[in-house]
Amino acid sequence: MRAATIRDGKIVFETHPDPVPGAGELLVHVRGAGLNGADMHQLRGLYPAPAGSPQDIPGMEIAGEVVGHGPGATRFAHGDRVMSIVGGGGQAELITVHERLLIPVPDALDWPEAGGFPEVFTTAYDALFTQAGLSGGERLLVHGGAGGVGTAAIQLGRAVGARVTATVRNPDSRDAVAALGATVIPTEGFAEHGPFDVILELVGAPNLDPDMDALATNGRIAVIGIGGGAHGELNLGKLLVKRARIHGSTLRVRPLEEKALTARLIERHVLPFVAAGTVRVPIAETFPLAETAAAYAYFAAGGKVGKVIVLP
Amino acid sequence: MRAATIRDGKIVFETHPDPVPGAGELLVHVRGAGLNGADMHQLRGLYPAPAGSPQDIPGMEIAGEVVGHGPGATRFAHGDRVMSIVGGGGQAELITVHERLLIPVPDALDWPEAGGFPEVFTTAYDALFTQAGLSGGERLLVHGGAGGVGTAAIQLGRAVGARVTATVRNPDSRDAVAALGATVIPTEGFAEHGPFDVILELVGAPNLDPDMDALATNGRIAVIGIGGGAHGELNLGKLLVKRARIHGSTLRVRPLEEKALTARLIERHVLPFVAAGTVRVPIAETFPLAETAAAYAYFAAGGKVGKVIVLP
Repeated sequence: MRAATIRDGKIVFETHPDPVPGAGELLVHVRGAGLNGADMHQLRGLYPAPAGSPQDIPGMEIAGEVVGHGPGATRFAHGDRVMSIVGGGGQAELITVHERLLIPVPDALDWPEAGGFPEVFTTAYDALFTQAGLSGGERLLVHGGAGGVGTAAIQLGRAVGARVTATVRNPDSRDAVAALGATVIPTEGFAEHGPFDVILELVGAPNLDPDMDALATNGRIAVIGIGGGAHGELNLGKLLVKRARIHGSTLRVRPLEEKALTARLIERHVLPFVAAGTVRVPIAETFPLAETAAAYAYFAAGGKVGKVIVLP
Repeated sequence: MRAATIRDGKIVFETHPDPVPGAGELLVHVRGAGLNGADMHQLRGLYPAPAGSPQDIPGMEIAGEVVGHGPGATRFAHGDRVMSIVGGGGQAELITVHERLLIPVPDALDWPEAGGFPEVFTTAYDALFTQAGLSGGERLLVHGGAGGVGTAAIQLGRAVGARVTATVRNPDSRDAVAALGATVIPTEGFAEHGPFDVILELVGAPNLDPDMDALATNGRIAVIGIGGGAHGELNLGKLLVKRARIHGSTLRVRPLEEKALTARLIERHVLPFVAAGTVRVPIAETFPLAETAAAYAYFAAGGKVGKVIVLP
């Protein structure tokens, strides 16, 4: 098979041996594979794939058709449309995935949308609900509302009846984010727009202190990105008085059983919104798999709303 | 009635009008009232009592006998033994308390023990279980194991089958803390004794970074004291990789309904341990109410294991 491949910090297009599905695994012909911020870290050597995943083929999410079964795999049939987060190796023509990680693709999603769904919706769902316990009527602040996780979080917040505010740095992106249902505010001075019951933090340390100011009593901060810095000052006095909590989370290092449980939560709590059209997957651009390097350059340039997808 | 009274940063003994129970309140003849670290902050003017509580009579927990009923109060009868956390005014001969805040005193507790039970056991229970979700088999680290909350937390951790480690600064207190069932370690270098699933943080900012190092994957830190400092550096990278969470909590500012719910949790989950003798209330010293000033000096000097109680 052919796959995007990391060679000396660059993306090239190379031929690899076809992967062979092991026990409980399916062989999937990839039809769409999204790019994510973490791909950029991995390309720079800062975020290696977990053990057991291809180290040199990037890609943390896929959608495609089942084309082969490993021993004991029974959950899907040949030709079924499936999607999943994966430890790595997604930006390729073929990939093996444990069947418990796979989610059926609703008819409402075409291949680019399905390929861009798993990572950002799983990340947003896990942070907002499993961790921060967001529920109807609450006030949600999404930092980085124009990003992939941001657009997913805004829609999920709206779908459950939360009141959603989002910071957006690029003025050109504000209308598109507002169209998703968020009240859009600038990054500077966001704390004045609080209080918020839940804050989805994708920037990191620079926001930690103003996040505490913006938080309501019994508020929760879910930290899922630290691109702006990892070391920040936390005022524990504010944490105490507000009876607040701060969560950290990352999906990639979790063991199989935790990832599989998360996949079941997505099937139960998010796919109905997809089927109903309540949430959608905004697509910024698609590229053929052979042009994955160009897709990375496009992604890294920023300024878009929506996912960047490669299509094998 | 007579009561300990704050005058110009000192404790004096003065006569006040008898309090009159309002709707849903009971008049309690106080028989034991514990001292707590927060009393010292209040004496220095740093921690005012919440609105509705006496501002000049200290005391955040009491045990005593019901001697009067306000309109609609039906939960207890005249002469019943009750105990409670209170917003203030506990170090007095009489106090009014809403009946939903009161907890029946088990036969196993005498008046000094009952007067020293509510604040530390409610604080420890709320932090360990309601917030941090401690459960059997997990590893608990209690900072300040010789203090009132520390001794309560060690016993509650042991009672539910957690493996308990405690830091103790004063070498003279280590044997007494170990006798409660904790593995006692020095304050310096505590992180080397991890990992811990739950950390009860009573010191504050200086421990924040080593706490993150000492934490296990999916670990939780419950911050209930910041005597050592409020502003600390938090490494969000560690928070993410460990999928950890940090809680802040304080009881005193909560509304009636939240305090009442907490009282019900204590009745259900802690009183059975008290009745069975699994947990006890270590008493360091008792003082007559008229000598409350001496009790504060004794408390402030530190170095004891167990509660300091005034007896009206």
